[in-house]
Amino acid sequence: MPVNLPLPNPSELKPIAGFMLGIAEAGIKKPNRKDVLVMTFVPGTEVAGVFTQNRFCAAPVQVCISHLEAQTETKKIQAMVVNTGNANAGTGEEGLQNALKTCVALAADLQLEPLQILPFSTGVILEPLPLEKIIAAMPRAIANLAEQHWFAAAEAIMTTDTQPKAASLTLDTPQGQINMTGICKGAGMIHPNMATMLGFIATDAGFAPGLLQQLTREAADLSFNAITIDGDTSTNDSFIVVATGQVAPIIQNQDDPLYALVSEALITLAKQLAQMIVRDGEGATKFITITVQGGKTAQECRLVAKAVAHSPLVKTAFFASDPNLGRILAAIGYAGIVDLDVRQVQLWLGDIWVAKNGGRNPNYHEADGQAVMQAAEITVKIDLGRGSATQTIWTCDLSHDYVSINADYRS
Amino acid sequence: MPVNLPLPNPSELKPIAGFMLGIAEAGIKKPNRKDVLVMTFVPGTEVAGVFTQNRFCAAPVQVCISHLEAQTETKKIQAMVVNTGNANAGTGEEGLQNALKTCVALAADLQLEPLQILPFSTGVILEPLPLEKIIAAMPRAIANLAEQHWFAAAEAIMTTDTQPKAASLTLDTPQGQINMTGICKGAGMIHPNMATMLGFIATDAGFAPGLLQQLTREAADLSFNAITIDGDTSTNDSFIVVATGQVAPIIQNQDDPLYALVSEALITLAKQLAQMIVRDGEGATKFITITVQGGKTAQECRLVAKAVAHSPLVKTAFFASDPNLGRILAAIGYAGIVDLDVRQVQLWLGDIWVAKNGGRNPNYHEADGQAVMQAAEITVKIDLGRGSATQTIWTCDLSHDYVSINADYRS
Repeated sequence: MPVNLPLPNPSELKPIAGFMLGIAEAGIKKPNRKDVLVMTFVPGTEVAGVFTQNRFCAAPVQVCISHLEAQTETKKIQAMVVNTGNANAGTGEEGLQNALKTCVALAADLQLEPLQILPFSTGVILEPLPLEKIIAAMPRAIANLAEQHWFAAAEAIMTTDTQPKAASLTLDTPQGQINMTGICKGAGMIHPNMATMLGFIATDAGFAPGLLQQLTREAADLSFNAITIDGDTSTNDSFIVVATGQVAPIIQNQDDPLYALVSEALITLAKQLAQMIVRDGEGATKFITITVQGGKTAQECRLVAKAVAHSPLVKTAFFASDPNLGRILAAIGYAGIVDLDVRQVQLWLGDIWVAKNGGRNPNYHEADGQAVMQAAEITVKIDLGRGSATQTIWTCDLSHDYVSINADYRS
Repeated sequence: MPVNLPLPNPSELKPIAGFMLGIAEAGIKKPNRKDVLVMTFVPGTEVAGVFTQNRFCAAPVQVCISHLEAQTETKKIQAMVVNTGNANAGTGEEGLQNALKTCVALAADLQLEPLQILPFSTGVILEPLPLEKIIAAMPRAIANLAEQHWFAAAEAIMTTDTQPKAASLTLDTPQGQINMTGICKGAGMIHPNMATMLGFIATDAGFAPGLLQQLTREAADLSFNAITIDGDTSTNDSFIVVATGQVAPIIQNQDDPLYALVSEALITLAKQLAQMIVRDGEGATKFITITVQGGKTAQECRLVAKAVAHSPLVKTAFFASDPNLGRILAAIGYAGIVDLDVRQVQLWLGDIWVAKNGGRNPNYHEADGQAVMQAAEITVKIDLGRGSATQTIWTCDLSHDYVSINADYRS
């Protein structure tokens, strides 16, 4: 039951020059399901990525980090492979070998070096990767490679997602038209810490080496790292930006006027994709924006926003459309700001001023709060009254369907 | 649907010499419901308490802390009053005045000073305390005072609890028989930080001033601070120990041989009461013990145990009796130990060794994990392989009923 999440229109997803996608059925977990995606890009393409901070980070994540570090000018990353149905996490040394063998096989098929491949997995943790099935499917995915396959690729990486997530953006610049298209997946175990479950953006803009990595980190912090569904940071979070440089001149540094245009567009697209994950959060019926302002630091604003966003009591109140807003105050109070003066705290629900100077606003009428709670999209604004920092987090409610989905996920 | 939580037998709850309880109906939230409890104790009684660390701590908690600090040898705490149905939290300056007025009224009824009263409230946050109703009910509660009213008192402090929680313990010592009886309440917003929602233990043992406070803190850390239901730290958590000193000699210090006996018994009773709260956790169908060993510090063991205990994905897997144990590894990985070497991590479910050296144990068979998951009481043991510290946390699963209860709580 996604919240205001329209199905992407395949014809509106812009192909990115120099970037191809191919899908195949490997039969990893379910029959008749496209579950392997191969992506390739032209030589000279710049690739940047950020990954989960979970200490049990999956084998493919470990390989991605190592291959990105090992890139040289002449041997850059040129392909990626994704499987769903199995996370290849909590699989120890054997899992690492399996992730590497995936790269070896795809490299042989594409006449590349294994170091030029990034592998990704998503699905169940603690189960051995069905390596043979994936390797057998790769030639079929390669045969399917085309620049037009974004929609099918978004479908191929889904797990508990109810629909594929993809978006495009076109930017008119003095140097010509630049395109960006992105896909992502994720609906549960979503509390990204550096990136989300899986997110890929490709652009035909070009970036000098290194510059894209910095921008990718910034975009992740403002998008995928600003969402949470259940507070569970995945073992497999990966966010990758690929810049093929097929149109317009290569952006050399942050002072390049093109950088401001392209980076803003990239951040906009990343936010849009990240919000799609929340809109399709497991069992979600509400899309909730939590803005915390008036903090001493962005970090403490984020602490408060996350405490509110993770509280099962706040989330169930949103599910019930019940303005039981004392639960929000309780979460602000335990968020971890030890010297918080609650007499300076203000709380708004939509435009309704609910808590004034730490207590109930005498002018607050519950009927007004109730009216805001009925909507599918709700904004919570909290002012800590102790500084000028601000942070926004997007989350969803906690419904019966969340419990059903996660109690049934493997069956 | 509490998990192995027998109804206390009123006749087995020992009266504590010098400690009386009286209940009354104030009609705070629901009609025909005992919702006010008054407790009084003889002069010379020692009282100690620990309270929530939530910055939005409720008005009565603020008054308790201040009255406990203001005690003198001649003007010690001699009575307590509890109301359910309203937490008097997030109520600002007016809430503080209402908590103080409760003390003034009870002090007048009992011919004490207001400073000798501790007030407690539990229920909905952000709503004004119905002061007049509570004050009107207090004389009826006083008229009801008796040493035998523990069971009725446990009933009177319930909110979403499905049954009253109470236990007694008798200790034979060389100085004679010592009795302890405790009651507590709480089923949601349970992640105590210093204490739980409301817990009261009384004993006829005696303690020198100061000694009881230290023991109360220690007992809270090993009991109420070691439980979590939903990770939401309440605004009203309070744990109070009252020692009337009516039997046996006053315990002067920790070297007194009686101290070891009495403190061990008190901690045992506190753990029993705290576990009752988990067994009656909102929607609970499983009682889960999480022991983390092999940590460098107890604090990091607690961090890992709490991450596992709070994960909605772990909790829904327990609800489903589904050994989807990779979710536990994911929670260990994001708990916050940045230098955790996952190759040293072991995981057991009951007696079944599931994850060995950070990966799936080759000898693990899912049928064995499945068998453990079916039970109503489940033990998870995690070895971090980096030290000798250990911590145990008790929690419950996350079920459809948790969502129902919290989506409907105010209606």
